[in-house]
Amino acid sequence: MTSTGRVTLPIEQGMDEQLPGILARLGADAVRNSDGTWLPEITPQLGVKVYETYFPARGNQEFALAHLDARPRFYLMSARVAAGAEGALEIDIMRGYLPLQVTPDFTDLYRWWEVIDRTTGDVVDVEGWSVSGEGTDTVVTIAAPAPFHVYTVNFLAWQVWDSTQMYNYTTNNWQEDPTRVREIGYDARHPQAWEFMQQSLRDWCVERPEVDVVRFTTFFYHFTLVFNDLAKEKFVDWFGYSASVSPRAMDAFEVEYGYALRAEDFIDAGYYNSPFRSPSRHYRDWVDFQSRFVSSRVRTLVDIVHDAGKEAMMFLGDNWMGTEPYGQYFGDIGMDAVVGSVGSGATCRMISDIPGVKYSEGRFLPYFFPDVFTDGGDPLGEANESWLCARRAIARKPLDRIGYGGYLSLAVKFPDFVARVEEICDEFRAIHDLGGGLRPENAPIRVAIVNAWGSLRTWQTHMVAHALWYKQIYSYLGVIESLSGLPFDVEWMSFDDVRAGSLDGVDVVLNVGAANTAFSGGDEWLDADLTSALRRHVALGGGLIGIGEPTAVPANGAFFQLSDVFGVDKEIGWSQSTNRYPVAHGEHFITADLRDRVDVGEGAGDIFGIDGAELLQLDGTSVDVAAHTAGAGRAVYVAGLPYNADNTRLLHRAIYWAAGREQEFSSHWTSTNVDVEVAVFPATRKALVMNNSTRAASTVVAGRSSGMLGDGDVVVHRLELDAMESRWLDI
Amino acid sequence: MTSTGRVTLPIEQGMDEQLPGILARLGADAVRNSDGTWLPEITPQLGVKVYETYFPARGNQEFALAHLDARPRFYLMSARVAAGAEGALEIDIMRGYLPLQVTPDFTDLYRWWEVIDRTTGDVVDVEGWSVSGEGTDTVVTIAAPAPFHVYTVNFLAWQVWDSTQMYNYTTNNWQEDPTRVREIGYDARHPQAWEFMQQSLRDWCVERPEVDVVRFTTFFYHFTLVFNDLAKEKFVDWFGYSASVSPRAMDAFEVEYGYALRAEDFIDAGYYNSPFRSPSRHYRDWVDFQSRFVSSRVRTLVDIVHDAGKEAMMFLGDNWMGTEPYGQYFGDIGMDAVVGSVGSGATCRMISDIPGVKYSEGRFLPYFFPDVFTDGGDPLGEANESWLCARRAIARKPLDRIGYGGYLSLAVKFPDFVARVEEICDEFRAIHDLGGGLRPENAPIRVAIVNAWGSLRTWQTHMVAHALWYKQIYSYLGVIESLSGLPFDVEWMSFDDVRAGSLDGVDVVLNVGAANTAFSGGDEWLDADLTSALRRHVALGGGLIGIGEPTAVPANGAFFQLSDVFGVDKEIGWSQSTNRYPVAHGEHFITADLRDRVDVGEGAGDIFGIDGAELLQLDGTSVDVAAHTAGAGRAVYVAGLPYNADNTRLLHRAIYWAAGREQEFSSHWTSTNVDVEVAVFPATRKALVMNNSTRAASTVVAGRSSGMLGDGDVVVHRLELDAMESRWLDI
Ligand SMILES: [Mg+2]
Ligand SMILES: [Mg+2]
Ligand SMILES: [Mg+2]
Repeated sequence: MTSTGRVTLPIEQGMDEQLPGILARLGADAVRNSDGTWLPEITPQLGVKVYETYFPARGNQEFALAHLDARPRFYLMSARVAAGAEGALEIDIMRGYLPLQVTPDFTDLYRWWEVIDRTTGDVVDVEGWSVSGEGTDTVVTIAAPAPFHVYTVNFLAWQVWDSTQMYNYTTNNWQEDPTRVREIGYDARHPQAWEFMQQSLRDWCVERPEVDVVRFTTFFYHFTLVFNDLAKEKFVDWFGYSASVSPRAMDAFEVEYGYALRAEDFIDAGYYNSPFRSPSRHYRDWVDFQSRFVSSRVRTLVDIVHDAGKEAMMFLGDNWMGTEPYGQYFGDIGMDAVVGSVGSGATCRMISDIPGVKYSEGRFLPYFFPDVFTDGGDPLGEANESWLCARRAIARKPLDRIGYGGYLSLAVKFPDFVARVEEICDEFRAIHDLGGGLRPENAPIRVAIVNAWGSLRTWQTHMVAHALWYKQIYSYLGVIESLSGLPFDVEWMSFDDVRAGSLDGVDVVLNVGAANTAFSGGDEWLDADLTSALRRHVALGGGLIGIGEPTAVPANGAFFQLSDVFGVDKEIGWSQSTNRYPVAHGEHFITADLRDRVDVGEGAGDIFGIDGAELLQLDGTSVDVAAHTAGAGRAVYVAGLPYNADNTRLLHRAIYWAAGREQEFSSHWTSTNVDVEVAVFPATRKALVMNNSTRAASTVVAGRSSGMLGDGDVVVHRLELDAMESRWLDI
Repeated sequence: MTSTGRVTLPIEQGMDEQLPGILARLGADAVRNSDGTWLPEITPQLGVKVYETYFPARGNQEFALAHLDARPRFYLMSARVAAGAEGALEIDIMRGYLPLQVTPDFTDLYRWWEVIDRTTGDVVDVEGWSVSGEGTDTVVTIAAPAPFHVYTVNFLAWQVWDSTQMYNYTTNNWQEDPTRVREIGYDARHPQAWEFMQQSLRDWCVERPEVDVVRFTTFFYHFTLVFNDLAKEKFVDWFGYSASVSPRAMDAFEVEYGYALRAEDFIDAGYYNSPFRSPSRHYRDWVDFQSRFVSSRVRTLVDIVHDAGKEAMMFLGDNWMGTEPYGQYFGDIGMDAVVGSVGSGATCRMISDIPGVKYSEGRFLPYFFPDVFTDGGDPLGEANESWLCARRAIARKPLDRIGYGGYLSLAVKFPDFVARVEEICDEFRAIHDLGGGLRPENAPIRVAIVNAWGSLRTWQTHMVAHALWYKQIYSYLGVIESLSGLPFDVEWMSFDDVRAGSLDGVDVVLNVGAANTAFSGGDEWLDADLTSALRRHVALGGGLIGIGEPTAVPANGAFFQLSDVFGVDKEIGWSQSTNRYPVAHGEHFITADLRDRVDVGEGAGDIFGIDGAELLQLDGTSVDVAAHTAGAGRAVYVAGLPYNADNTRLLHRAIYWAAGREQEFSSHWTSTNVDVEVAVFPATRKALVMNNSTRAASTVVAGRSSGMLGDGDVVVHRLELDAMESRWLDI
């Protein structure tokens, strides 16, 4: 151990003798319980900060059962059902849902439910349908449907089981444990629930003098997580607000916004406002409305915690809807800290970049759980993989703390693992110590990612279920994963921001994603103000990088509306009659360091070059990578960018080239070996050289003692790094 | 030789002694010249019919040069050019075009040209732009463009070189031959040109008493074939009408239709009304207008031919626009015959199914040209490949004649080839002889292909440049190639036909193609009348087969608008939050005979199953093949169907299954081996068993002596067939 602090460990009963030694060895200065464990009695004597988990909106089954009208709700859509040639159409609305999780809410149902003809999009008049039965037998009957049209029912449903507790319950087979109940939540908008929440927290703070940090897990509204009739996940959206609805909230919304929301504003044809959908104005209003409500109520809870002399920490997950850490209300809460699971560099930055908190903490993988800490498990390998992804992000914007979860008694059975964690903790603290508590220097190139969400979804784009892999996202997610460890200031900018002039001062703009999605932009690109702003940006010397299907919407003879700037477009069938003669370009600055062909992941279909573009990689006749000069500026196109070391380097170089600063690249503390990255701290005259791979690496690193800028001599360092090694250089 | 007739050979001078023997050996009863050869003097003594090529709209350079205002025109679009921050925008309209082929036509240009803001789609007022320079230096200046908007110029251009003659000229390096000129065409709408065409043909008929058949190559308007500034093909559309335009025609159109066409009606944002575009009403009107004009004038020419005691034969290609053999005017022409190049089964049926002619002739591959008939060439292999594709189509609907092109003197140097052609000619004649001049029996299942074009594009869907391979078509073209040799009556039906009730009597409907195209249908599927007609069809017991992206347009929560019928839909990013648990289905009637996994070609992206569909093949989590029962009917989905024997069998079985007649399949003269197909002729009590592969084939063929229907016993034939063998059975 070379240093101490900044580390949180889970502890448990029955390890009293070992605990002080382990804490000292890892330099841990805080402890926490885990789900199902309790802090040991010696905790106050350990001389460390104590966290304890707190659930404000569930956990008291007595209150929940006595106030079933306080349960939170979902907006749900029935299956799509086609009418026949004649006669009424009956829709069994609960088909595909799990009665243990949801049940129809009949409150004022003709106001809150909607029956929609999905063939035409028309709403069926409430006179035209009726409801019979209840619970799983609830049937909506449409008296006179249009023959052979498809119908759905949008209905409100009670959440009769908290989604996270249900997940833990079913995953861990708690049905075999008679002490476990299926926990029911309560909605902070319900007056008695809200009173109960506040008083419970006050009481709890008094009862827990040993707790320094109240770790909220989390607040009021769960992300959308609905199970099917086999108790398997049916719909999961880590950003979804479908579980934040209630007549009370919608009435309040109407009073405030002057218009009433419809069921369809939430159901969204069954897409439930997935973040991949370009958000409607109504949905944006709802997010804003709930964010104000949640942040205001959370502030009240945080004040209670502060009044008790404790700190408030928020877990970034579960019931986190409405907190919106990158929204405009989060800073008002007075939250002390945010903790979240670090599955990647991007999720690390999603935590560490949150403004307005005193400190951030990353919960590292693997959890000390029996699935990994067992014969045949590879806790060491998982720790290394997690650390290599996170380290480069931490080097750019340090988390203040790291920590682990699970059962320490399991981890100590794996001494190699504990030894590696010790190294990781030391490496982590060194970034704070040797970096002087400052961020490393970034390149003098300002990067902006432009999409429909802008700053609200900083480091949160292209995700469905937090850090899980999805086929249609990994080729885009790689862009933000790469950026999480690259030396650039990155801004997240909405199309409205662009229209309002936010591109001033930006050097390189990125538009990343699949056509039709909020991240590429879809119909937004029909707006001449938007396309003109981007053309102006490039024409006057700026850079533009498109990944996948940037600026894509078929209109006016183009699919990429900035095809003239990118120098490429996508063949969607209509211009097959146009002959093309693609010729691969030779060596180029952008692809100079790559060891192999660029892996474009899922790619983007058939991309063709337009006159003047340099086609840096072809896949048959389709363009994978292109570079194009347009006016005084430059554009780069890449068909997809899954995360790997070569692709990260491609993006690094593409940004320099798009900014017209490629001549500076080799003196900006860059490494010839793509596995190796460097963070330079001119204030402390240090540079952190990181081998991100599990192979040894030879490399040459070059930079000035003044950092990236200044007029110091360029010094060349030839380095041989061990697998995964990080090394501090004096510059 | 076992039979004689039905075969046309190219002959030439200098082979007088050989000719009678070759003609007799192949049973040829007609001869023709080729491009650059002349009929020998002994031709009249050969006792065969004589064809000679005739070009009505080019070939007389003297007339052409004296009537430059009679040249045909193109509508062309300039490159897309972005305006800067301020100032005028100059567009060099000839950039990318070849001055040897086209030159701007300034006739009344402010009426016929258009400048369009391609950022907004708005037309720039004629006051806002001006033209300077001429020929290659023609520049359009937009005085005050919107900053950073993209503009194009739609302009009329003279065709200063006939497209086909240019192609032959540049391909054969005729620039080195001082006797060759660059031929200029003339437009049949020009009064003097039209007079000249008629008189020239009258004179020619008189001068050519030895000619029995005038082989028109072809008439007035070439398909769209534009070259770039390097004399390479720039735009090719075998169905395009861009070369059929003229102020005279557009004025006549306006008088007749009561509205004026715009340049943009032809330019179509640069897509030039590709057949993959859903045709606009204006474009359909134009095709109809020109078809009436062309057929009426062609009729006049055919009358001249008939008056001279000769037959008129039309070559299906080159200047064929407006003849529309499957349109409503072709039958009025009185054309005796159509001849076309047979590159596949589909192109064979495209010729043989043309109604309203006395006979059809297929020009087989390979041409007797020096590129193939040389050391290292494989004329025998090419002949076999061509014959195997064509034979199964001929067996379903015989061409009346076959023939070859090129130089006979080359072919006779390859005795193996000539021997094989002799066999092919005999096999071909046997189909006429043993089939009794009748078509074989089709299954009692009526199939309809539904798209935006309907019957006008019978056997002509999914093609760009006749039979060439394109990446975005082969996975769909395989459907019509398969159908060309399958025992079904196939109808080609437009969406309007469907709305008008044409599905009555149809058993199985196919919708084939990529989203956004005229073949899948695009926005047509937003029409509830259309989707309801298809749902009704299936609900009442009909079949529906979708290939690729059938019924696709994103709306109302679905991408495939008949996803409920197909039991599958495509993930376009918006429903990634929905969890799916695809499970592959086991054995199924549809996939029973396949030797390997279905090759879906380019596939259709991420296809997911909806409750109830049987997923017959998965590619990872994506569905390649699915079967679904909906109401009393059935639907089948296949992600793509390139042509091969297994896929043909898949389609064959899918049609039976969709029709609910799978129990009859094995007694309907089907073969257990997918390489083998059968055509049954109950009237002559014969069955033609064809091994379509170049491997020997063991198979079992079963059917009733009464044919497909009736109550005869099912007889099982165990057969061992040689490679490529066809065998006639007595049934
Ligand atoms: Mg690719
Ligand atoms: Mg260019
Ligand atoms: Mg596939």
